[in-house]
Amino acid sequence: MSLEGTQKDVDEWTKQFDPQYWQPLEQFAQLGEETGEVGRSLNRIHGPRKAKKDEEIKNLGQELVDVLFVLCCIANREDINLQKEWNEMTQKRLYKRDNQRFKRKEESQ
Amino acid sequence: MSLEGTQKDVDEWTKQFDPQYWQPLEQFAQLGEETGEVGRSLNRIHGPRKAKKDEEIKNLGQELVDVLFVLCCIANREDINLQKEWNEMTQKRLYKRDNQRFKRKEESQ
Amino acid sequence: MSLEGTQKDVDEWTKQFDPQYWQPLEQFAQLGEETGEVGRSLNRIHGPRKAKKDEEIKNLGQELVDVLFVLCCIANREDINLQKEWNEMTQKRLYKRDNQRFKRKEESQ
Amino acid sequence: MSLEGTQKDVDEWTKQFDPQYWQPLEQFAQLGEETGEVGRSLNRIHGPRKAKKDEEIKNLGQELVDVLFVLCCIANREDINLQKEWNEMTQKRLYKRDNQRFKRKEESQ
Repeated sequence: MSLEGTQKDVDEWTKQFDPQYWQPLEQFAQLGEETGEVGRSLNRIHGPRKAKKDEEIKNLGQELVDVLFVLCCIANREDINLQKEWNEMTQKRLYKRDNQRFKRKEESQ
Repeated sequence: MSLEGTQKDVDEWTKQFDPQYWQPLEQFAQLGEETGEVGRSLNRIHGPRKAKKDEEIKNLGQELVDVLFVLCCIANREDINLQKEWNEMTQKRLYKRDNQRFKRKEESQ
Repeated sequence: MSLEGTQKDVDEWTKQFDPQYWQPLEQFAQLGEETGEVGRSLNRIHGPRKAKKDEEIKNLGQELVDVLFVLCCIANREDINLQKEWNEMTQKRLYKRDNQRFKRKEESQ
Repeated sequence: MSLEGTQKDVDEWTKQFDPQYWQPLEQFAQLGEETGEVGRSLNRIHGPRKAKKDEEIKNLGQELVDVLFVLCCIANREDINLQKEWNEMTQKRLYKRDNQRFKRKEESQ
């Protein structure tokens, strides 16, 4: 349920534009741009670029949701239900985890 | 409320690891990797790489939530509340939209 | 020989800094940032972002060499000889091409 | 002179394809993909992903020239002379350095 609300927020907001969504590879170029801004921000907080740390963490939060916004645009354009995909990914990871746990038990004998 | 559940899913799942989260710049390297896989997938659906389109859209859904997973890892590590950041971004965008609407009215006179 | 000069340019220029090179994952965060700026620039020339095309192509040239600069920093730090790697890649691609050419001949019969 | 040879290598090799170059935003999607592979490789050498370090440094060299290859494709398609852009960037950086040196002298008084 949860990510559906996020995707719907994006769909409501982008309705004002014509076309509502950019072309897929235009969307990806924006995804690259926003991802790069996360990198710059992390280099300011944890790397060699100097910044006021508290302010930059605030900025990082906005950069992260900018990436999320583009993810939702891509998903909306392709009719992808992110919550459904998320649940599927979670299931796969859980299965993998249990699989690994079993191995760990064997290893610890 | 909604993205808090997503962040919590990630926090629950990563608790099995030690350390629970990678270092920030290690997380970013993974973000770059996952973002790149979205690009490859989009080039298969809409670009020059050939693929069975239906299968690849299914794959794209998983690539998108892989990116989202890393976003949540970064946010969790930095104590960033994505839903709060999302609401703030939405407010900013709405304000900008109304601002632009006003300009549009002037232009249309 | 050619890319060796490029890598040497970078080595000469960065000698003024201490440390001369950033840490590898800091370098990658910068690579992500610079790559993202190429995406923004291409979206201005060929995508939905409006820009004066001639000026933006000039800007794109600088964004591309910014990426190349970071590639050289990473290579220099790891003692990687890019020209040697380039030659190896070229050989691999040529081999692949000939392989494909052969297939094409069969297909055209 | 030097990067001209690199760009020419790419132009010669891509002549076999029709079209010779992908569309600009298709090229960027590939740039994102190749950049992401550099991130994965660096996480194997310097981050949490385990790998045989020597083998992975070899692999990193190939990933770096894969990025360079895409840079050259973009430049060739847009008629950008990378060596000319490189020289211009170098000049700018040198000027900035001298500028900063002057400031440093003031600061040290």
